[in-house]
Amino acid sequence: MRMRFLHTSDWHIGKKLNGYDLLADQKAMINQLLALAKSEKVDALVIAGDIYDRSVPPETAVSLYNEMIKKINLEAKLPILAISGNHDSSTRLGAGTSWFEATNYFLRTELAESFEPVEIGDTQFFLLPYFEPFDAQLEFGEKASIKTIQDAMPHVLQKMQTAFAADKKHVLVTHFFVAGSTRLDSETKVEVGGLASIPTDLLAIFDYTALGHLHGKDAIHLPKARYSGSLLKYSLSEINQPKGAWLVDWSKKEWLTFKELTPKRDIKKVTASFNELLSPNEELKTLQDQFLHVELTDQAIIPGLMNELRQIYPYILSIERINGRTKQIQTIKHHDIKQVNPEELIQEFFTDVTGESVSQTQEKMIQEGIQAVQKESDS
Amino acid sequence: MRMRFLHTSDWHIGKKLNGYDLLADQKAMINQLLALAKSEKVDALVIAGDIYDRSVPPETAVSLYNEMIKKINLEAKLPILAISGNHDSSTRLGAGTSWFEATNYFLRTELAESFEPVEIGDTQFFLLPYFEPFDAQLEFGEKASIKTIQDAMPHVLQKMQTAFAADKKHVLVTHFFVAGSTRLDSETKVEVGGLASIPTDLLAIFDYTALGHLHGKDAIHLPKARYSGSLLKYSLSEINQPKGAWLVDWSKKEWLTFKELTPKRDIKKVTASFNELLSPNEELKTLQDQFLHVELTDQAIIPGLMNELRQIYPYILSIERINGRTKQIQTIKHHDIKQVNPEELIQEFFTDVTGESVSQTQEKMIQEGIQAVQKESDS
Repeated sequence: MRMRFLHTSDWHIGKKLNGYDLLADQKAMINQLLALAKSEKVDALVIAGDIYDRSVPPETAVSLYNEMIKKINLEAKLPILAISGNHDSSTRLGAGTSWFEATNYFLRTELAESFEPVEIGDTQFFLLPYFEPFDAQLEFGEKASIKTIQDAMPHVLQKMQTAFAADKKHVLVTHFFVAGSTRLDSETKVEVGGLASIPTDLLAIFDYTALGHLHGKDAIHLPKARYSGSLLKYSLSEINQPKGAWLVDWSKKEWLTFKELTPKRDIKKVTASFNELLSPNEELKTLQDQFLHVELTDQAIIPGLMNELRQIYPYILSIERINGRTKQIQTIKHHDIKQVNPEELIQEFFTDVTGESVSQTQEKMIQEGIQAVQKESDS
Repeated sequence: MRMRFLHTSDWHIGKKLNGYDLLADQKAMINQLLALAKSEKVDALVIAGDIYDRSVPPETAVSLYNEMIKKINLEAKLPILAISGNHDSSTRLGAGTSWFEATNYFLRTELAESFEPVEIGDTQFFLLPYFEPFDAQLEFGEKASIKTIQDAMPHVLQKMQTAFAADKKHVLVTHFFVAGSTRLDSETKVEVGGLASIPTDLLAIFDYTALGHLHGKDAIHLPKARYSGSLLKYSLSEINQPKGAWLVDWSKKEWLTFKELTPKRDIKKVTASFNELLSPNEELKTLQDQFLHVELTDQAIIPGLMNELRQIYPYILSIERINGRTKQIQTIKHHDIKQVNPEELIQEFFTDVTGESVSQTQEKMIQEGIQAVQKESDS
């Protein structure tokens, strides 16, 4: 029996882009994924972790995931092979999984569940969720002396290998940093620090490794392993990354192909002067409904710059002066002012009013001012 | 076909009692419920809401509920009929429900789901979760002009009645305040304010109404309706309430009987002097492992009262002076100091050191002191 599947990951449902809610964009993109799965007549959908953006996702995110997974699995009857990533709470995401398998929705959130493969057609899927070294210590005992993920991984994969059926293909679905790949902005420092890499040669025993974690589909190009990349562009650094899913089908000579999808709203870069932006030509008009990174060519101070531009381009993410005053990128935080630190807030206000970034001297003054206020309120 | 079921509610998994973790107590009690269900050979377990204590329960609570519900439904194969209460998040609790029904685990969290009865044996169960007037407005439209739960309830029950099969028994499972019942301490002000009552006569169309919300099993005694009461005693006001579940079996003449269960740790009241407590007699020794409300007979100031007593009685909830100084009950907040307001904290410290409650004058001084500090840090 053949096996033909789509590999996606890093949905980060509930994530916001500079404060902009992405739920509608995420819903549209998952619907596109489902349409692709149908038109390509695949046998399964693989989701390699980071389904939610946070361990406690907002109710709206829980609701959207529940809606989409019902549509994919219960209505369209498509088998799902999913794991939790480092952004998910394995306990919260994992509640109810015992009931899901009856309809071929396999969601594994614990290391201990990863050793029994899910067999569909001619393929054994090993679903290895993101785990901590501590989980591996519990699994393999003190003698294994596991301190890091690198220590754990040979034990994990060796144990999986004992369940390999010789006449089947073997797929690993996992969510880690694999050595050799490039890290991006939208993975925060905490994860970079905490998440160790897996040596690529360990993956050679699998016919395909469906990776999650890095957001670019080209983050790594091993003969038999790929990151699918994230569902949408989740930071400015992903501006040039195509988004979509890998299609795996060993019956074809070109067994691995990337299927690009078009998001509802893209991130675009535009280089123009303030006046050009205020009277948009045809090209600029097509960008009004997109997330925008603006490279501003003006040198002059422009009062109320951001307010003026937002009325025409409501989804501006950032403004960069490329011709003068400063090279600093001004990143716009939208709506979530409470989450911005006081320093950023003052800088943002300054830029909003004057149209330019603060100088180093001004930055120092702001810092000193804030420190003085904080000292007072602490005492 | 007969129908014999147990009616429980208000598990409040994850709730703490004056800061004491109750997960082990809750687990033990749910295991007792299951044992009872088995020994009584019931056909179903009804859970009338407030499964969790909070809309975002801690992971440990999610984990416990998932573990117990798997044990009851998947292992013991007992059908479950459950609804969400006002403490639950219908979205979070309701994720995955579409998969649960395959094994007769019926969990309804939305008003719209309540009109299609679950039929088991000769009985139609109508599972009506806690809902807001807004949900009823959506369901019944503007013409119904629904502003309150009282407005909504006749519409809801009338719609249910259209699905009544004449040859079946009809059970309503719901989570509201039914008029005529007594309210208790452990329902907070917010709920009292927000939760309107249902007139009792509306329930007459059902053969039994399994209620959740109030924590005493005797909160209401209608001919065919009961509150099951909470899983455990969740406040001092519940000290004299037996805890357990109602057993319903219409084939018996005594069709409604309360089955009392024994919690791992009870709440007990003890009246004694400090010296008696320090050298516990046989009776006092039996109380060392219980949650305690102490009525202290001493008049003198006792330095370090609480610390001394806790070493012998680790689960003290509160101390009341019944013979002098003050009648005020001193409630102990255990471990969760960060959640106590500064005023309470100072009062607690005062009582801990001096063994007496603060006077009104002292209370005023504390308030003024705190206000002065707050003003300073706000400026």
